[in-house]
Amino acid sequence: MELEKQIESIGRSSNGLFGKDFLLTWEKSRDDLLTTLRVARVLKEMREQNISPRVFDTGLAVSNFRDKSTRTRFSFASASNLLGLAVQDLDEEKSQISHGETVRETANMISFLSDFVGIRDDMFLGEGNKYMREVAESLDEGFARGVLPVRPGVINLQCDLDHPTQSMADLMHLESQFGSLENLRGKKIVMSWAYSPSYGKPLSVPQGIIALMSRFGMQIELAYPEGYGLIPDITEMAEKQAVESGGSFSISHSMEEAMAGADIVYPKSWAPFHIMEERTRLLLGGDKKGLQELEVQCLANNARHKDWEYDEAKMRLTKSQDALYMHCLPADISGVSCKEGEVNAEVFEKYRVRTYLEAGFKPYIIAAMMFTQRFERPAEILEGILNRDRCRVFGE
Amino acid sequence: MELEKQIESIGRSSNGLFGKDFLLTWEKSRDDLLTTLRVARVLKEMREQNISPRVFDTGLAVSNFRDKSTRTRFSFASASNLLGLAVQDLDEEKSQISHGETVRETANMISFLSDFVGIRDDMFLGEGNKYMREVAESLDEGFARGVLPVRPGVINLQCDLDHPTQSMADLMHLESQFGSLENLRGKKIVMSWAYSPSYGKPLSVPQGIIALMSRFGMQIELAYPEGYGLIPDITEMAEKQAVESGGSFSISHSMEEAMAGADIVYPKSWAPFHIMEERTRLLLGGDKKGLQELEVQCLANNARHKDWEYDEAKMRLTKSQDALYMHCLPADISGVSCKEGEVNAEVFEKYRVRTYLEAGFKPYIIAAMMFTQRFERPAEILEGILNRDRCRVFGE
Amino acid sequence: MELEKQIESIGRSSNGLFGKDFLLTWEKSRDDLLTTLRVARVLKEMREQNISPRVFDTGLAVSNFRDKSTRTRFSFASASNLLGLAVQDLDEEKSQISHGETVRETANMISFLSDFVGIRDDMFLGEGNKYMREVAESLDEGFARGVLPVRPGVINLQCDLDHPTQSMADLMHLESQFGSLENLRGKKIVMSWAYSPSYGKPLSVPQGIIALMSRFGMQIELAYPEGYGLIPDITEMAEKQAVESGGSFSISHSMEEAMAGADIVYPKSWAPFHIMEERTRLLLGGDKKGLQELEVQCLANNARHKDWEYDEAKMRLTKSQDALYMHCLPADISGVSCKEGEVNAEVFEKYRVRTYLEAGFKPYIIAAMMFTQRFERPAEILEGILNRDRCRVFGE
Repeated sequence: MELEKQIESIGRSSNGLFGKDFLLTWEKSRDDLLTTLRVARVLKEMREQNISPRVFDTGLAVSNFRDKSTRTRFSFASASNLLGLAVQDLDEEKSQISHGETVRETANMISFLSDFVGIRDDMFLGEGNKYMREVAESLDEGFARGVLPVRPGVINLQCDLDHPTQSMADLMHLESQFGSLENLRGKKIVMSWAYSPSYGKPLSVPQGIIALMSRFGMQIELAYPEGYGLIPDITEMAEKQAVESGGSFSISHSMEEAMAGADIVYPKSWAPFHIMEERTRLLLGGDKKGLQELEVQCLANNARHKDWEYDEAKMRLTKSQDALYMHCLPADISGVSCKEGEVNAEVFEKYRVRTYLEAGFKPYIIAAMMFTQRFERPAEILEGILNRDRCRVFGE
Repeated sequence: MELEKQIESIGRSSNGLFGKDFLLTWEKSRDDLLTTLRVARVLKEMREQNISPRVFDTGLAVSNFRDKSTRTRFSFASASNLLGLAVQDLDEEKSQISHGETVRETANMISFLSDFVGIRDDMFLGEGNKYMREVAESLDEGFARGVLPVRPGVINLQCDLDHPTQSMADLMHLESQFGSLENLRGKKIVMSWAYSPSYGKPLSVPQGIIALMSRFGMQIELAYPEGYGLIPDITEMAEKQAVESGGSFSISHSMEEAMAGADIVYPKSWAPFHIMEERTRLLLGGDKKGLQELEVQCLANNARHKDWEYDEAKMRLTKSQDALYMHCLPADISGVSCKEGEVNAEVFEKYRVRTYLEAGFKPYIIAAMMFTQRFERPAEILEGILNRDRCRVFGE
Repeated sequence: MELEKQIESIGRSSNGLFGKDFLLTWEKSRDDLLTTLRVARVLKEMREQNISPRVFDTGLAVSNFRDKSTRTRFSFASASNLLGLAVQDLDEEKSQISHGETVRETANMISFLSDFVGIRDDMFLGEGNKYMREVAESLDEGFARGVLPVRPGVINLQCDLDHPTQSMADLMHLESQFGSLENLRGKKIVMSWAYSPSYGKPLSVPQGIIALMSRFGMQIELAYPEGYGLIPDITEMAEKQAVESGGSFSISHSMEEAMAGADIVYPKSWAPFHIMEERTRLLLGGDKKGLQELEVQCLANNARHKDWEYDEAKMRLTKSQDALYMHCLPADISGVSCKEGEVNAEVFEKYRVRTYLEAGFKPYIIAAMMFTQRFERPAEILEGILNRDRCRVFGE
């Protein structure tokens, strides 16, 4: 009954995500995002009730990680498995890509019997999302020319611009913590830079957060030390969206000021936009010495902002001294995973289990992205699943 | 209906591939090869019609890659998955094989619940196929002595002698492009050496091509610069087969001459037989300096034959100036993947999508090899699949 | 019928392994161990009769190997696959664990949709089992706090103390070779140190063997050169258990003396307990030079005991000159895998296939550990499987 109502809420009409890749949340309509959340919730509920939402008897989901990952790798594997797909890693060191193969060719070679390709490529500004679109275009051609029996859906598992599986999982967590998306209206969320002893963290998480949360009537505050800005286009877009959705958007350069009265805080390190630009330029030019100097300079810059740690004093400034703390994990926890970091150990501990809950939505978000990409009318398929009476675990 | 007829064409009698490993096409009868092609076609058709040909509820397919691979790795994974098997990689760097385990023991240890073992071992002349037979004998013993509940089938994913999953996929492509195997009679196919800036490419593709295509009444022309011959026994066998099947076989040492009037061309680099022999000898003797010198010498030799590029001028010599271009991929494309290579960029582009189609047959060929190895009467099983009404994707 | 009787023998009452991790055999009651053996036997029999015991439609089994492995890796993969789970490797070099993530967090991040976590961590005394318990506690918390929908079971795939999947497979082999567990009463089993040219082999196999076999009324003889003792607590426990179960326990320092009249022999190298302690201490202190010196010293010690090879002369001392030879494999075979080793080549050859049979029980033992951890009344589920009529291979 509960499940049936949830399925009903998805609606009967053709869904806008059908047949499209999930590369950036801002390419998706608000309705599309709501559909994703609802499908994710149904899949989560089904699994908890021992109903198997498996829709693929066989099929491959290709994972292409061009950067390290534990949680996203397992989330992708979990989502694929939940729907019945086997994961096949495209490990670019093992494969002949290292022999100079072109992206276009490889995209087809890995996709003859594949239903999805998940890609993480977040290391270099201007490169990651571009690569994903190159893969997507290659798959378009392969399908159009009869090479591929289906057009595999591409899912962005983090690029230089956005981290949609993270931000959507974060949104699902907020919906869960605050009771509904409606309840997020007027809430103040602070996306804040934080100090970290490491170098070159991608911009995709803060960009993804301000770009997504600005569409739900929230008061977005973006805080960072002078010079640590994000990609200007994305900041501008977030501002515009915030106003249009009935919220607000502001930028500040003091962590303390930003935290005042916050309902939600997201303190997280990143490298400044202009440094990331410089880094890509040096890299493409093969300037190793320049890259080393840039790293030294960047770490020295960071070290001037060690006070950008989310600690108890700052927590006390937030709404009821208890704003919801969020993080994509792993966090740089002072005295735990590093000497000085993004967050004070006691403050982190207070919200630790909630960051695990936050992360736990990601497998279902990815599964929902797959589901809505593949099925024009997801509600019908979900009803079919409910009616076919198939258990995930036999005898439970 | 279409599918039912295709299944009927396979025939009802016991198939000759049943219970036997697929190591070399020339160990198989013409009927066996036809059966493989027909089963592959049915499996492909079924998947395109959303009929799941899954026959294994559980089971493992072991992949043992002793050389790099993207496309064969994915093809093997796809075939295994299509039939319901999970792939387990035997990664010899991770495993205790590096501790001096014998082949015999390992073959059994990985096979307790395995249904197939796919092996690529193509680096050293005289070694790869030998290793596969060693594995096969070990499995024979394990099964005979009650160690293994079933005898896993061994599939050659490329050795020093043959590359049967490639050549059979190539044959399926030819059947598809020319309408039938019958239509291949009298067609001229040129297996030609081509220049590449890389060293030590295996002989298994050209050998596999002349050994297989010579059985279907084609006019085989093998072309290479003086000194770049293949294993003499295989060349002789191909000649004999060509004549017996009503075709012809000739060798030439000019790419231009070879291409004249060709219906099909397969320009592809390889290392000369005698160099590969020398290489194995030096390697077994641990002579690192000798190996380096051999590489230098071999690359210098290659460089004298940069005119062995398949370019527009040579294409114009072929039948209707438009012979079907084939390649196992990745090709060394001049100006794209290397400065000077096997094929001119524009010529490659003209046939590029067709090389993708060619590669796309491989997963089904591998699945058909598994299927016919396992089921004595594949047509009966395929009929059973057709009648059980099981979709690959739910609700599609 | 045979299967039905086997299932009946498991009993109807709640099984003591339900909801508990399998970390050490000595934490389990004798009844629990018998249940594991019986379930393993039923699963093996089912598979051989083409009955699929798959109970998971989807789900992940995480494998976390912190040391090399071929056979245990394949056994874990086989067991997971047999029950319907996909294996996802937690490769700690690829993952962000190398970035300082805490065990607690990672344990949860990999478990959102996982049913089991198998861990091998056998390199350092005092560390492996401790790590497993840390993971287990983290999963307890995650489940209690609503992070995880089910509490994944943890399975010890070898630690510093025990190697329960090995010792239980060994016990199953003995049951099979001697006809019943009852027949093992009074039999003499010799767990003997043997010479090996390698360094730092874990203690978990000999410890696991004496700790398990001492519970079935056998006469345990532990033999090693002076100074090569195991962890004292485990030796004492084994002695106590042996007496309680109606058997006996003795230690000797001569391989010849030990072998006299033996029914079963298990000659296997290990590093002395005190060396392993020292090694952990040096390692935690980062003393690389000390570690190198320790290795040199340890190998020199070993070399004084090259006469601890199980050879034909020693075999002749055993019961009927034909004691059952056992080994966890790979064995260091003199003249085969090393110059001088644990066992003479001809002696090994005589029992070689039986060591394969021994190893072949491991996948089913692991599957039974999973099965009994997950299902309170395994007999009921197994009956359900028998009645549902699902084949492992279609059409066979």
